[in-house]
This record gives sequence, C-alpha cells and structure tokens, in this order.
Amino acid sequence: MNFMLDRKIYERKKEKLLNRLEVKGLDGLCLFSPTFIFNLTGFAFLPTERPIAYLLDEESERMVVPRLEKEHLESRDLGFDEIITYPDYPGEKHPMKFVEEMIEEKDYDKIAVDQDGYGSGYGYFGPSLSDLIDIDVEDIRLDLEKFFSVKEDEEIELMKESAKWDNLGLKYLQEETEVGLSEIEASMKASMKASQAIIRVFGPEYEQTGSGFPITVGYRGQVGEGSSLPHAIASNETIKEGDVLVNGAGVEIGGYSSELERTWIVGEPTQEQKEYFELAVKAQDIAFDAIEAGKKLSEVDREVYRLYEEEDIQDTWRHHTGHGLGTRIHEPPFLDVGEDWELKENMVLSVEPGIYIKDYAGFRHSDTVVVKKNGVEILTYYPRSLEESLIEV
Amino acid sequence: MNFMLDRKIYERKKEKLLNRLEVKGLDGLCLFSPTFIFNLTGFAFLPTERPIAYLLDEESERMVVPRLEKEHLESRDLGFDEIITYPDYPGEKHPMKFVEEMIEEKDYDKIAVDQDGYGSGYGYFGPSLSDLIDIDVEDIRLDLEKFFSVKEDEEIELMKESAKWDNLGLKYLQEETEVGLSEIEASMKASMKASQAIIRVFGPEYEQTGSGFPITVGYRGQVGEGSSLPHAIASNETIKEGDVLVNGAGVEIGGYSSELERTWIVGEPTQEQKEYFELAVKAQDIAFDAIEAGKKLSEVDREVYRLYEEEDIQDTWRHHTGHGLGTRIHEPPFLDVGEDWELKENMVLSVEPGIYIKDYAGFRHSDTVVVKKNGVEILTYYPRSLEESLIEV
Repeated sequence: MNFMLDRKIYERKKEKLLNRLEVKGLDGLCLFSPTFIFNLTGFAFLPTERPIAYLLDEESERMVVPRLEKEHLESRDLGFDEIITYPDYPGEKHPMKFVEEMIEEKDYDKIAVDQDGYGSGYGYFGPSLSDLIDIDVEDIRLDLEKFFSVKEDEEIELMKESAKWDNLGLKYLQEETEVGLSEIEASMKASMKASQAIIRVFGPEYEQTGSGFPITVGYRGQVGEGSSLPHAIASNETIKEGDVLVNGAGVEIGGYSSELERTWIVGEPTQEQKEYFELAVKAQDIAFDAIEAGKKLSEVDREVYRLYEEEDIQDTWRHHTGHGLGTRIHEPPFLDVGEDWELKENMVLSVEPGIYIKDYAGFRHSDTVVVKKNGVEILTYYPRSLEESLIEV
Repeated sequence: MNFMLDRKIYERKKEKLLNRLEVKGLDGLCLFSPTFIFNLTGFAFLPTERPIAYLLDEESERMVVPRLEKEHLESRDLGFDEIITYPDYPGEKHPMKFVEEMIEEKDYDKIAVDQDGYGSGYGYFGPSLSDLIDIDVEDIRLDLEKFFSVKEDEEIELMKESAKWDNLGLKYLQEETEVGLSEIEASMKASMKASQAIIRVFGPEYEQTGSGFPITVGYRGQVGEGSSLPHAIASNETIKEGDVLVNGAGVEIGGYSSELERTWIVGEPTQEQKEYFELAVKAQDIAFDAIEAGKKLSEVDREVYRLYEEEDIQDTWRHHTGHGLGTRIHEPPFLDVGEDWELKENMVLSVEPGIYIKDYAGFRHSDTVVVKKNGVEILTYYPRSLEESLIEV
C-alpha cells in the first residue's frame, strides 16, 4: 500500500493550479499554510512557530524551511529545485527576509498567496509579505479552498482505506464497551487493538503524517448526560446501564481522514431513546437523499432543519448538518444554511445532524460521503440501525 | 487533585490584565485565540472554524460562542455575565456580527484585542473586527504573550504534576523498548500503561482539556538514522541493536504540559556515540547554568552555540536551545540568538540543544525548567547519564 500519493498526482494538481493562475495573470504562488503545502506537494511536517514557505511558478518550485527540516525535506525526494534554510525562529535575521529574497530573485509582476505572511498559534510574530516586497500580492485563499474541496480520485481512495480502519476501530470499541468501565479505558483498549492491527497489516511500510497512535477511536465525554454536549471533553466517566454513548473514529491514511461516529445505547433502550435515535437516523437519511452535484449546500441543511420544525424539536438542534474534510478534520464547504457554495462531484463531506436533549442525552451518527452526479457514495459503513447499536449488559 | 485551577487564580490574572489595560487607556479586551481564552478563563473547548470571542472589562465578562458550546460553557460555571450564541458557521448572519453587537452595546472609546478578528486553519472566512466597529482597535498580542509567559505559582504546580507522569511514561517506555519491536508498538505499550495508571490514580475526577490518550509517550521517527532528523515523523521503524533513539513525553495536566525527552542507545554504545552523547549533555548543562532572571534569552543560546564552535561541530547544529511552554507545547519566548526578551522569574522553558549527524544519529535531552532569581529549577527529573540511557540487548 502506498500511503503517500504518487508524485504524478501532485504534478497534476500543480498543473491545474498553474493554469488557474495564468488565467488570472498571476506569475507565481506562495503558500504559507502547512495544510495547503501538504495538499499540493505531499510534504508533511510538524508545523510550529517556525515559518515555512513554498513558491511555485511555471519554471520552478522552491521552499524556505528552518534548518531542522532540511534533511527531512530532502529525504522526501519531492523534486524541488531549491531548498533555502534559515537557522531558526526568531533568528538574528527574520525568516521572512529569506522568503522576501526567494521571491525577489524572481521577476514577478504579481504574486498569489494563500495568506499575507506566515501565521501560527505558537506565538509567531513577523511582517506581512506585502510589507516586504514591492510587487502586487493577491490573496487567493478562497480560490484555494474551492480548488482543494474537490478531491482527486486517488485522494478519495485513501479516504476509503481510512473508512475501513474506522470500522475496525468502532467494532473493537463496541466489543470493549461495558458497564462499569471508564470511557477512557474503553477508548484506549479499542485504539490499542486497532492500532496494533494496522501496523501489523502494513509493517514497516506504514507511514503517518502526524504523531501518536495510528488509530484513536472512542468516546470524548459524550457518555450518559454528557452525550447531550456535542463538543464535550473526555472526563473519565463510568459507563452505566441506560447511558446513551456517542463515539467517533477518524483514521488518518496518507494524510487523509474520514469521519465515522455512532450513537449506542447501553442495555434495553427506553421508548424515548428509541424515538430520538430514529429521528437522528431520519435526519441523516434526509441529508443523504438531498445531496447531489449542482445543488447548494444551504439547501441540504435547510431540508434537514425542516424535520426539526415538522417534529417540533427545534430545541434539540445544536449544529448544522456537516462539513468538508480531507487533510483536515473540518474544512470548507459547510453543510450550513449560510453556505452559498454549490455541491460539486468529488467533494467529500461529513453528514451528521444531531438531536440533543439538555441534561439527558444526545443522538448523532456521522458518515463520510462523496458527492456524485445524482447523489452520494457513502464511504463509511458501520451499522446504523438501533438493533445494531446496543451494548449488552 | 484539582485539575482545573481555582477560580480565584483566574480572577487574579484578570485583575492584573485589567490594570495593565487601564494604564494604557483601553476600555476593554476582546480575545479570539482559544489559547488566550483558556489561559485567562479556564474554558477549554475544541477549537474549530466556529468563532469564539471573549470580552472583558471592569464591569463584566461576556462571550460569543456557537450554539453547540452553550450548555458546555454553562456547565463550567465560570461566572460569566452573559453567554451569547449564534446558530453555526457560516450562518445566515455571520458570527462576527454577534461579536460586533456585543461590543457596540458597550460604550468603549478604545478596545484591545489579541488579533483583529477570528482566525482558524479549518477554512474560516470573516471580516476583521476593525472593519465592523467604529472605535479604535489596538492589537496587544505581544503584550499578552509577555503577560502569559510569566506563570502563576499554581500553574507551575500543574507542570510539576505533569513532570511526574512524563517520568512514569518514559520509565515504561524504557522497559518496553527492545530489539525487533516497532517504534510505534513500544510507544503504544508505554502510553497505554501510563494512561491506565493515571486514570486509576485520579478516577472519575480525572479531566483533560483535549482528547485522546491521557499520556502519549514514545518515539516519533527518531529511531536509528531517523534520530538525526529533529522533527522526524513516525514510520513504524524496527528497533535494532546499535540504534540511537530519541523519545519524548509531554503529559497535559489541567491544560498545562511539561516537556521531557531523552536519548537512549540500544546495546553497547560505540566510542563515537559516547562522545556525541556527552557533548549533548554538556550543551544542556551550559544552558542550565546560563539561565537566570535578568539575562537575555539570546545570551543563553549564544553561550550554548559557543560549545559547537569550540568543538568544531557547527555542522551538527540544527536548532536553538529551547522554547517557552505552558498551555501550548511551544510558545514565546524562545531560547534563540534573535530573542531580545529578558528572562523573568517564573518563565517556564524547555532546554534541549541537540547534536545531529547526517545519515547517522541525533542526540538530544529535553528538560523543562522554571527561571529563578539566581538560576533554574528543573521540573523534569528522568536520569540523564549515559549509563542510565541504555537499552539492554
């Protein structure tokens, strides 16, 4: 199994992008975002406060990286024409000066960027690119998001592989979950078993783009009453009879993830639990049926919301229907009433409307779908029915 | 054990900050960064493309959050005066309009911000705050970084607790590491054992601010030749006799982490390995000795670099001496020749100069220290000597 996409896929993406730039009269593209750099080149690294910049034009590819990434980047053999290094951040000479010099060597009139300089949540400070260079700088981030939101077939193949391992993870989780066990313990046991399986299946060829366990699956605080909080945080809750549990898996394969989440009930479900469960399934079915190329994303979310109105359960609504995903766990476009993008073939989306009853429970299945001409292809395939979503006591 | 800091610590921090603002003639502070919001209020959440904004002044504390965070935020009981929710992102009405309204209800002349609007790597788009409101917006991010770089004693206590669990994690890792095992397998076994220990020690009181295993310890690709890449990425490498291994632990306790990394050698070390190992230890000792309140961070890094010059091993240098840490794994200030900040008491820093020989091996210990009036207090305490850094074969 090749975890990294073949070089030719990246070449194809670069060519498509360069064609767009040419149409717009732009001479080159400078990327600062680690996500976009990975999407376009396949170079995965640990992003920190240390700036990284990638410069693409018809003639060449060049990169500015901190000294500590030089051999790592060279070892990836990505065919770049030049790798420029700076010692470290902040440095006696600011890293952005190296980016400035790299660009000024080129005789551009107008350059496209994903953002006007580097940014990082780790406390990076530095000048914007437009403060440093004299040529026109055009921010094309929206265009880039649109470009990357439509996946190559080979990217979708990696997400299909990811869905298999999500499935194994949840299978183990369902087997390991029992009354009296802590949510964290159950999550860890399943993650361990699934991770041990994946590294044995692929052996030394296995590669990841991040760090930590290859497969992390489990609960994140959505246990019992906590299931009513869509973004709860794990707190070592003990699993009890009668609990509603919402779990999740999102295995990264070659940098690409899918998303799979299920709602399970511990023991015999009550009538109320059954009804909410079936409503959540129905909401998801409405979304599956509504999605097709050419439609607006807002329309899909509106159709799903209609169910909340018809059933008079607007007070159980907490979030929109879903989001794009790929090399990030969330990315544009969003299945939201305010999203004016049009669905396009090969967009990949999570579909996960939820029903949440304050201080009681939450119900949400999440699946990953590919937008097709006349509908969807659902990549994740764990059972969704109530009978198959029970934990025996 | 209280994982979250007591409310009074946050009140103390807010008071200190408000005093600074008053001196500068600023009427209120609006924070968008999830890190700064956590640092100042203790509200931990999963940051996404959905904007969150926190507004503090002498009279009140208010927050704008997406609908899905409402009950979660209320359950934290942080004493906020008002919680304003918007349905979702992007929404029919942009979330920043809610922030605009929250601020305009106040009769400010001048407002401080950590950044001019929300930002996220998940594909968020939106207007800057200064585009929306008429009053003066002053970016005080640098001041905030300086403010948070000096830790409260209670924050340092959490980092000391973190160091204990780092230690357990590395202990298990050293026990589990053996020839023929994959780096990922060894890392997972140690992480599992240490995580099972911590959730049993603290039971249902255990809380985390993120998700995944409570303790993740291990190798991240720095195995054998890979150890020569400071930021390698795990690739399921098999551990062999003669390998140099660089590992790491950084357990989060109440949102605060320490950093502990060690270099180990598998089997009998060669003369060359011994020499490089001792040089790395020596470089770290130079930094420990050099750090004290009142000195410039750049001076410390310069003193460490002098060793590379004296030993004529400049070609083994890949990065500066260390970085700040706390609620982020990297944060200002940096132990770098270009860092003009002064060391202050209660700053917390990693100290981790490394020696890397291309295609051969890398050597780096990392410890977490607190800056004191006349030196350092080292929080992490795993053995550093060569004799104690061997893996038996």
